[in-house]
Amino acid sequence: MTVRYFVDEPITRETATLSGSEAHHLLHVMRAKPGDEVVLFDGSGEEFPARVEALRRSEADLIILDRQRVDRELPSPLILGVALPKGDRQRWLVEKAVELGVTRLIPLETARSVAQPDAKAVQRLGRAVIEASKQCGRNRLMEIGLPTAWREFVASAADTRIRLVAHPSNQSAAPILRPVLPGPVCLAVGPEGGLSDEEVEQAVRCGWETISLGPRILRIETAALALAALLAAELEERGT
Amino acid sequence: MTVRYFVDEPITRETATLSGSEAHHLLHVMRAKPGDEVVLFDGSGEEFPARVEALRRSEADLIILDRQRVDRELPSPLILGVALPKGDRQRWLVEKAVELGVTRLIPLETARSVAQPDAKAVQRLGRAVIEASKQCGRNRLMEIGLPTAWREFVASAADTRIRLVAHPSNQSAAPILRPVLPGPVCLAVGPEGGLSDEEVEQAVRCGWETISLGPRILRIETAALALAALLAAELEERGT
Repeated sequence: MTVRYFVDEPITRETATLSGSEAHHLLHVMRAKPGDEVVLFDGSGEEFPARVEALRRSEADLIILDRQRVDRELPSPLILGVALPKGDRQRWLVEKAVELGVTRLIPLETARSVAQPDAKAVQRLGRAVIEASKQCGRNRLMEIGLPTAWREFVASAADTRIRLVAHPSNQSAAPILRPVLPGPVCLAVGPEGGLSDEEVEQAVRCGWETISLGPRILRIETAALALAALLAAELEERGT
Repeated sequence: MTVRYFVDEPITRETATLSGSEAHHLLHVMRAKPGDEVVLFDGSGEEFPARVEALRRSEADLIILDRQRVDRELPSPLILGVALPKGDRQRWLVEKAVELGVTRLIPLETARSVAQPDAKAVQRLGRAVIEASKQCGRNRLMEIGLPTAWREFVASAADTRIRLVAHPSNQSAAPILRPVLPGPVCLAVGPEGGLSDEEVEQAVRCGWETISLGPRILRIETAALALAALLAAELEERGT
């Protein structure tokens, strides 16, 4: 796949300018020259074949050659609420969620959560979304929502048919593989120490189903990505 | 879950000794004291509640209190052949494969692979298996096979009913979600640059099916874990 670059504003004219990290990538990593052809995207769902026209120290001007709607999204929205893990694992989670097609990621505040990411950390996560989108071909950026309290998250999206909470359970779990009608899917993954009994009850009372991912204790990011992969596959299979 | 420690030889007597990294964990990270109770495992599939008896500078003696067969394995073997990614991602892949229940991981040599891990790297991967097993509760260690040529890997396991190669395809992919009869499952994931046409043909000629994971370009470790998560869920659902 031709190297892709993100333009942080809608591409509406016949030219575009790369700056910041994206210009650095083009200029100093790929060492582009005038005449080189690349692909731009601006998060709107379109791709823009473009040609490098002029290079400056930290910016590049390009000529837009075409615009094409190229949709690599899931057939229906996939929303993932997750108590963010700490450190590197946060970035991994965001990167893999983008690759798997997650539409929106909501950091959850739960009884046993660790601290929420600060403004600087959220900015880095936004950068991770862009880089993962460049690599995997998505032309819409995964949204990262504001940190949301568990109670509020499970009470929202009351009209979403499929809402699943990852929770080890003794009784036979709702089958994780079953025909999924088209429509949004909401997933919820709790913190390392697990969801409290009260949190699980709140979700069930709001109409969520609990899903067990087997007898092994999973890290937050593993549970989130396994669940996302499963539902993404089901959505892709059912198609639009 | 009580903190778990790995003993690198079969536990057969009424005492066991921890050394190396495991002793370090017990002594200096957990700061255990005589009388503390922990859980040991030796890779045999059993767990051993034990009590700390004596601590030395870099070893610890424990008394075995009980032995219990605690199986957190998948109902059937799940074998994952994968062209290893570079650097950190290799370790991440191994860790997540353990959590998801992969039975055996085979590093694959393909036309577009990067270098295979050297002896030191393989040792570190073995350590990653132990640490992931401690954390997720598996009492059997995932095996890491010797690097194997693609041609040889796809020709092996000819009697395994379910053999799937991750490969983006234009024609409608074999449904990834379908009733899976009990029995071993083999998965194959190629390198970042993709499998060559010849490699795909070799697999198909040997009876493998290609599986598309959607329109997004996935990193090696993402494709491997998505596929493993899907098949693990199907195996768990079908049971023994």
